[in-house]
Amino acid sequence: MIKTIECSQEGIVRILDQSRLPLEEVYIECRDHLEVAEAIRKMRIRGAPAIGVAAAIALALGAQKIQADSFEGFYSKLQDLAETLAGTRPTAVNLFWALGCMKRCALDFKDLPLQALKERLREEAQRILEEDINTNRALGREGKGLIHDGASILTHCNTGALATAGYGTALGVVRAAFEEGKRLTVYVDETRPYLQGARLTAWELQKEGIPFVLITDNMAGYFMKQGKIDMVMVGADRIAANGDVANKIGTYGLAVLAREHNIPFYVAAPLSTLDLGLPSGEEIPIEERDPEEVTQFLGTPIAPPGAQAANPAFDITPARLVSAIVTEVGIARPPYKDSLRDLRQRAWHRPKAG
Amino acid sequence: MIKTIECSQEGIVRILDQSRLPLEEVYIECRDHLEVAEAIRKMRIRGAPAIGVAAAIALALGAQKIQADSFEGFYSKLQDLAETLAGTRPTAVNLFWALGCMKRCALDFKDLPLQALKERLREEAQRILEEDINTNRALGREGKGLIHDGASILTHCNTGALATAGYGTALGVVRAAFEEGKRLTVYVDETRPYLQGARLTAWELQKEGIPFVLITDNMAGYFMKQGKIDMVMVGADRIAANGDVANKIGTYGLAVLAREHNIPFYVAAPLSTLDLGLPSGEEIPIEERDPEEVTQFLGTPIAPPGAQAANPAFDITPARLVSAIVTEVGIARPPYKDSLRDLRQRAWHRPKAG
Repeated sequence: MIKTIECSQEGIVRILDQSRLPLEEVYIECRDHLEVAEAIRKMRIRGAPAIGVAAAIALALGAQKIQADSFEGFYSKLQDLAETLAGTRPTAVNLFWALGCMKRCALDFKDLPLQALKERLREEAQRILEEDINTNRALGREGKGLIHDGASILTHCNTGALATAGYGTALGVVRAAFEEGKRLTVYVDETRPYLQGARLTAWELQKEGIPFVLITDNMAGYFMKQGKIDMVMVGADRIAANGDVANKIGTYGLAVLAREHNIPFYVAAPLSTLDLGLPSGEEIPIEERDPEEVTQFLGTPIAPPGAQAANPAFDITPARLVSAIVTEVGIARPPYKDSLRDLRQRAWHRPKAG
Repeated sequence: MIKTIECSQEGIVRILDQSRLPLEEVYIECRDHLEVAEAIRKMRIRGAPAIGVAAAIALALGAQKIQADSFEGFYSKLQDLAETLAGTRPTAVNLFWALGCMKRCALDFKDLPLQALKERLREEAQRILEEDINTNRALGREGKGLIHDGASILTHCNTGALATAGYGTALGVVRAAFEEGKRLTVYVDETRPYLQGARLTAWELQKEGIPFVLITDNMAGYFMKQGKIDMVMVGADRIAANGDVANKIGTYGLAVLAREHNIPFYVAAPLSTLDLGLPSGEEIPIEERDPEEVTQFLGTPIAPPGAQAANPAFDITPARLVSAIVTEVGIARPPYKDSLRDLRQRAWHRPKAG
């Protein structure tokens, strides 16, 4: 399986540089939390679950170097590091969730000697990484029943192994259905401006031998109208209590098109993507990235010099357009206010997904 | 004004190579109809009205070299040339319309000596070119009332001077509104895969000083939901009798999104784009272009080698999603079966647009 990110005993974080895929498989090595933060900011590692894992590993790494006389001194510096990492990307909630897990771990073990506490933080980061893979596999098991034999599934952005510690969310569900022998075709939106679909999803599907057709984002309606798409399956960067979904820019348009053609629109995401403290998607901050990602194409200018461009990285799909939300503990259906809360509670009362 | 295409007295056709814009303004010179056909096929010149003009010029050029003893011999060879040109691109009807004008001209002057007949064909091609510009200006006058002061208009592909002999269709309407002092913002879809929006529309708008914001195609829904778009204004490659519109891939998705947000969706096209012989858009052939336009980006691979891709160049927007169709003789509203026929008849009974 593809290793998106790993941390050696010596504290070197190896990250598969996704900005250079699919033409080059290059790993970068980060030696402190700032280098990991930069890799997140530059989208060398991306995908909501993956940046959560990366942030946890980076925080554990940074923690090792903290000098302090007391837990309070240690914790205050840990919070500073966490804040730096939290500032890398604003939309995906998994980042904040993972940092929260790490801080809770520190508080839980505040009475340990500093060296032992640091070791616990390393273990916690590793646990978050491993749990992410297990969560994805559970998510695949829960969701694969939505995909029938012979189905063709439209997906957007990359929600595969590369977007996570491994296996994938929406693409993990597709993978699980494929692994049990279902014949599938995946329509892959190229996903401008960063081309996660063309560069990453196509690369993963090709490695797995899952049949796919790459299309530009603006072709989705054409293929839906032709009856070529049986369902849309996407991931999420944050899901509000009412079921509104923040995901890669263009997701909202797909949801409107899916409704127009009576095609089910599914979201697959781990519980760590839920932000039940937010009543609706309106409150989710949308990251505005550098306009050069739009006016240039992998470094080559495509617009006249000085052209003004916009680059919102995410959009909000209202819950009314979402047919179901697949999580690692079950499938939520409307009304989401109840079903998402129920799933979260179910997770608290059963052993970890594994 | 930008000269998309022109023909010298010596029979050299100069074409602004749109495949190299906006970074380079390079003209190519075509010396026979085959070179023009190749320029159309390779999209060095594109846009429904412009390829009509190019085909007429190419046919006039080819006609000069025909050797024949009789009109019948001449006409048979002319038809062969026309067939070659007709085979370049299947969707835009203006191509067939322009070739039809040229053939009718030959038949009208069949009694002239061959040399004089050839001269008439040159004049006819020149007339088609000049009429296109006049038609666009008339279209702008008819349509500009749809655009209010302060409006923001979303457009797709390129429908400006570059898509025509000059001035533009949908962008011509925008230009006409701007020329009378209205404050406007144009949201420009980049229009994958060939990037006509980013490369050509942005370039034209920048030259004219019309404010614009470049976006990727998948951002349209986001900005509509934010209330940033007052109307959509696009061109057309073919319009069926019932008002179904063939236009650049992605247009259909915009029309669905516009309806979802109660935003008017306007189409601007000359009467030469009407194909009233076709009852509906279902019969319009959709050009399938080389998948490399999708898997590569201006020559740089963006997908893994061997990735399968689809590349339909156009889609059909059903008439029910079209708020109005602007032509050079007036604005058609639903039901289009009546209103389009009325406009066509009106054109027959009044002097040429000018």
